Amino acid sequence: MKRPEEAAQWLKARDHFLILTHVRPDGDTTGCAIALCLGLRSLGKDAWIWENPQFSPRFLPRMEGLLRRDTAENATIVAVDMATESLLPKGGEDFAGRFQLCIDHHPSNTFYAADTLLDASCAGCGELLYQVLTALEVEVTPAMAEAIYIAISTDTGCFRFSNTSAQTFATAAACVGHGADIAPINRQLFEIKTRGRLELESRMMAEMDFYCGGAVAICCLPQKLVEQLGVTEDDLDSISGFPRTIEGVLVGAVLRDSEPGRVKFSVRTAAGFNASAYCGALGGGGHAAAAGAAIDGTLEEGKARLLEILRRDKSLWK
Amino acid sequence: MKRPEEAAQWLKARDHFLILTHVRPDGDTTGCAIALCLGLRSLGKDAWIWENPQFSPRFLPRMEGLLRRDTAENATIVAVDMATESLLPKGGEDFAGRFQLCIDHHPSNTFYAADTLLDASCAGCGELLYQVLTALEVEVTPAMAEAIYIAISTDTGCFRFSNTSAQTFATAAACVGHGADIAPINRQLFEIKTRGRLELESRMMAEMDFYCGGAVAICCLPQKLVEQLGVTEDDLDSISGFPRTIEGVLVGAVLRDSEPGRVKFSVRTAAGFNASAYCGALGGGGHAAAAGAAIDGTLEEGKARLLEILRRDKSLWK
Repeated sequence: MKRPEEAAQWLKARDHFLILTHVRPDGDTTGCAIALCLGLRSLGKDAWIWENPQFSPRFLPRMEGLLRRDTAENATIVAVDMATESLLPKGGEDFAGRFQLCIDHHPSNTFYAADTLLDASCAGCGELLYQVLTALEVEVTPAMAEAIYIAISTDTGCFRFSNTSAQTFATAAACVGHGADIAPINRQLFEIKTRGRLELESRMMAEMDFYCGGAVAICCLPQKLVEQLGVTEDDLDSISGFPRTIEGVLVGAVLRDSEPGRVKFSVRTAAGFNASAYCGALGGGGHAAAAGAAIDGTLEEGKARLLEILRRDKSLWK
Repeated sequence: MKRPEEAAQWLKARDHFLILTHVRPDGDTTGCAIALCLGLRSLGKDAWIWENPQFSPRFLPRMEGLLRRDTAENATIVAVDMATESLLPKGGEDFAGRFQLCIDHHPSNTFYAADTLLDASCAGCGELLYQVLTALEVEVTPAMAEAIYIAISTDTGCFRFSNTSAQTFATAAACVGHGADIAPINRQLFEIKTRGRLELESRMMAEMDFYCGGAVAICCLPQKLVEQLGVTEDDLDSISGFPRTIEGVLVGAVLRDSEPGRVKFSVRTAAGFNASAYCGALGGGGHAAAAGAAIDGTLEEGKARLLEILRRDKSLWK
C-alpha cells in the first residue's frame, strides 16, 4: 500500500491487533507502538503491544495496561519501525512469517509482511504513524501525541540530524497542538546522562591526545577502564562520536581493546576528510564520515598505525 | 502596535534602516537582525546592522556586507530582541532615546522605543520576526530562513525548553521549507563544545560529591582550577546546570570562590524541591527551580552549610 489512507482502511476492517516492536527497541519503535495501540483502542478495537523484554524502563509507565506477552493466535500482527525479520525482538522469533502489516520508514525494508506501508521520506516512523492516525480520524490525545513526539524526536536527535525535514517539524507542531508536554520528555531523552557515561567522558577527556593543532583527536579506551567504571553498553553507545564534539576536531578516533590482543578503531570525520580511506588502509571500511577497522596489537600500536596513516593526508597537516 | 502587519506597514513607509542588537548578542538577536536586514534589502530598502563588537565569530560570515559602525544620523533605528535600553550594546550607548521601533518577545520590555511590536508568546524573537517578514511579503531566501532558524533554535535550546510551542515548530518547518540547511547549524550551536568546557566538565565530574544515593550532587569549583584550565566566561556559561544533567540528581549545586573569601552558590532543583528556600536560608533567593546565594567563607565551609540546610529537607533524605 502506498498511502496512509489505505493502511487506515485496512486497520478499520479488522478488530484484534498485536503490535510488535524491533529488537533493542528505541523511542521510535516504542512510541509508534504506543500511539498505534492507543489510537486503535480509541476506535473500540482490541489492541495490545507485545511485551518486548528490552523495553526501556523510561517508557514502561506509558505502556501500563497495553502490554501482553502471549502470541495472540487470532490477532492481526502489525510491526512498526521494523525493517526486516532479522530485527525480531528477543523471544519473539515465532512471529516470523506471521506479519500482516508493517508500517516503516527504512529504505532497507525487505517487505517481509503481507502488506507494507513504507515512506522512507519520514525522518522517524512516528511521522508516518501520525499520518495513519489522522487517516483513521482518531481524536489524538496528549498520550498519543507524546508517543509520536518521542518517536520523531528520538530518530532526529531532537531535530538536530540532517534527516529533520519541514514535515518532521510540522508533525512536532501537531503533537504540541494535541497537548504533548514535551519539556520533560526532552530533559529525559536529551539532557540527562548517566553517571557512568559522564565519568567515561571525563576519563576520555583526560586520555584524549590532540594533534595538528587540535584538528585530530585520538582516545584510547582500555577495557580495564570500561570495566572499572562499570559502564553499560548503553553508556558506550555513540561514544565513537565523542571526540568530534570537541571544537576544532576534524578527525576523531576512539580505539578499544575489548577483545584481547585486538584493537578496534572507530573514526569520525568532518566533510572533506575520508574516514573510510583511513580505515581502508587498516583493512576496514565504512562511510566517508564514519568508518571502522580492527587489527591485531595493543592500543599503543594501533594508535601509532593510525597516526602514520593520518600523517599521509597532507590536507590535515598543513 | 499589536500585529506584525502594522509593523510591516510602518517599515514599508521608510527607506533607511539601522538595526541594533543587544549586549552580549546571542543567536536570537543576531539572527533577527540578519533576517530583518536581508528582508528589507530584498524590498529595495537601504538597511544595515550596527556592528556589535561582541558578535560571535561563528555568525560573522552570515553578516558580510551587512555591518556598519557609524551612527547613521538619517536612518530609522530599529532594535530586535532588546528588552530595555540597559541592554544597549557596548559602544552603542549613544543610541539611547533614538529607537523608533523595537521588535521583541520579552514580557519585561520597557517600551523605550517610539513604537514597539511585542509578542511575549513567541519562544524566540525570531518567531515574531518571521511573521513580520511574511507580512512584508518578503520572498524568504535560505539565508533569511537560516537566520530565523538560528534565532528560534537558540532561544529554545534546540526545541528542548518548555517555551517551545506549536508555533515554534511551525516556524522551524517554514524555515526548512524555505531552504534552511539546519544540520550544520545544529552541529555548530548544540553539539560542539570547546576543549575548555569539556575539560571543565571532566574536572567537575572528578570533584562532584554525591549524597542521598545520588539525589544530591555538589561540586566545588575553585577559582584556581578555572584559571589553570584557562576557561572563558563563555565556557562557564550554564555550568550551574551541569550537576542536574546527571541521571537521578534532584538537587544540584555549584559552589565558586571567584571573589576571595566569599562562596557563591548556584542551586538547581527538580520539581518538588525548592532551590529558593535552600538559598533563602543562606540569605539568597531566586526561583523554585533555580536560585543563588553568597556567604563569607571557604568552599569547604560553604559546602558544609549547604549540606546542613539540605539535611533538614526530610523529603530528600528518606
